[in-house]
Amino acid sequence: VTARLEIVAVPGVPEVAKGSSPGALIAAAAGRAGLAIADADVVVVSQKIVSKAEGRVRDLGDVEPGPNALAIAARLDKDPRLVELILAESRRVVRAERGVLIVETRGGWICANAGIDASNVPGDETVALLPENADASARQLRSDLEAATGSRPAMIIADSFGRPWRLGQTDVAIGCAGIGPIDDWRGRTDREGRPLAATSVAVADELAGAADLARDKGSGAPAVLIRGAERWTSAGDGPGAGALRRSEGEDLFR
Amino acid sequence: VTARLEIVAVPGVPEVAKGSSPGALIAAAAGRAGLAIADADVVVVSQKIVSKAEGRVRDLGDVEPGPNALAIAARLDKDPRLVELILAESRRVVRAERGVLIVETRGGWICANAGIDASNVPGDETVALLPENADASARQLRSDLEAATGSRPAMIIADSFGRPWRLGQTDVAIGCAGIGPIDDWRGRTDREGRPLAATSVAVADELAGAADLARDKGSGAPAVLIRGAERWTSAGDGPGAGALRRSEGEDLFR
Repeated sequence: VTARLEIVAVPGVPEVAKGSSPGALIAAAAGRAGLAIADADVVVVSQKIVSKAEGRVRDLGDVEPGPNALAIAARLDKDPRLVELILAESRRVVRAERGVLIVETRGGWICANAGIDASNVPGDETVALLPENADASARQLRSDLEAATGSRPAMIIADSFGRPWRLGQTDVAIGCAGIGPIDDWRGRTDREGRPLAATSVAVADELAGAADLARDKGSGAPAVLIRGAERWTSAGDGPGAGALRRSEGEDLFR
Repeated sequence: VTARLEIVAVPGVPEVAKGSSPGALIAAAAGRAGLAIADADVVVVSQKIVSKAEGRVRDLGDVEPGPNALAIAARLDKDPRLVELILAESRRVVRAERGVLIVETRGGWICANAGIDASNVPGDETVALLPENADASARQLRSDLEAATGSRPAMIIADSFGRPWRLGQTDVAIGCAGIGPIDDWRGRTDREGRPLAATSVAVADELAGAADLARDKGSGAPAVLIRGAERWTSAGDGPGAGALRRSEGEDLFR
């Protein structure tokens, strides 16, 4: 089986305010652009639009850094108010060296700055936090989009994460609904009939990264439609992106 | 700027023998399938086909494990002959715990088993090593494909790597030619005119992962055509995937 995939940004999604429904806004923008969204499609939505709709934005002017944040900020040459927010969103600090603060978020992701940043957030000192539960957000988005269009595509919420040994960031899935995030080939065989060893593909992450290629970081285009990935989609919401988290017991680098 | 990408596997690429030209074989298969390859396209080729063509395969029956390999193999419950090959391809062991052997390869990649595996390699005890210099391989592929078709698409050689904190593997670029592997947005601004902090996108890795979505691990389809990514391509071969390697001095996890 080979596939042909098509990846297209949904143009014209407006700025999202707290309390608005990204699912409805994306459905309306797709409609205006003549982009039909089908059950078999995957819609990849940037974390930022979800965080804004959920009110997960903070003004640094409202943040009072504590002693721990002040100490780390001084050492890393970071804004202590930002460090305070990062620590408040984290379970533990994984690395704090050379200007880099890598944490395990309360949601279980290991990433720089707890995923908090200021790009594409209106306001001079406003930053966006990750959604509290991006899998729940993805399920809600899916259901809102279904209410608006009658279609029930798979939904992925994506954010840009760095990698320890490779430069640059790639978009990965922090939430999903209606798609199996991992395609496990273990136990299946290659064309020689030999077992495929340790082949378990993080398709939700590959889809998130693929969607990023159709977006322009500067324009903030927050939704991308992927066609041709239906073999990984499901009517049920499935396990969510939580299934991509490596447990502490299996982790050699925490 | 938004883009529409199309990703399609090249069907019918035959098994590759040592000394054959993957570039010519891919060109012929694309021709038979009626797939025109243009300068603006990106062709993503799996590491396995390149390794086979370059004779980078080994029979485990020919390998005599040394004492270090025997000790590590016993501890990790791995085949000592495979461990011997892994160590011979490595500069250093990064982790050897819980059945997992993560190394820095002589080519500078940090990955499990030095990228050595047996899937889709004919022969009961035959394994494929990574190409010695996959950037050079990508340049050669590009030039062979140009000789066969008259077109000079960008070329990426992809392999499946695991990630420390996320389950599943994603395909990443281990070699490339004619494409800037990193799209650096630092210094540019978002739509609010604010600087985009630390946004540097590993496009070659996102393209490699996107191509993987159009392949079937079991069929071994070794070449995938991506249309719509021309903004990252160049007539010159560029810096190669080596530009994706984080240096030891910047690495917090080696």
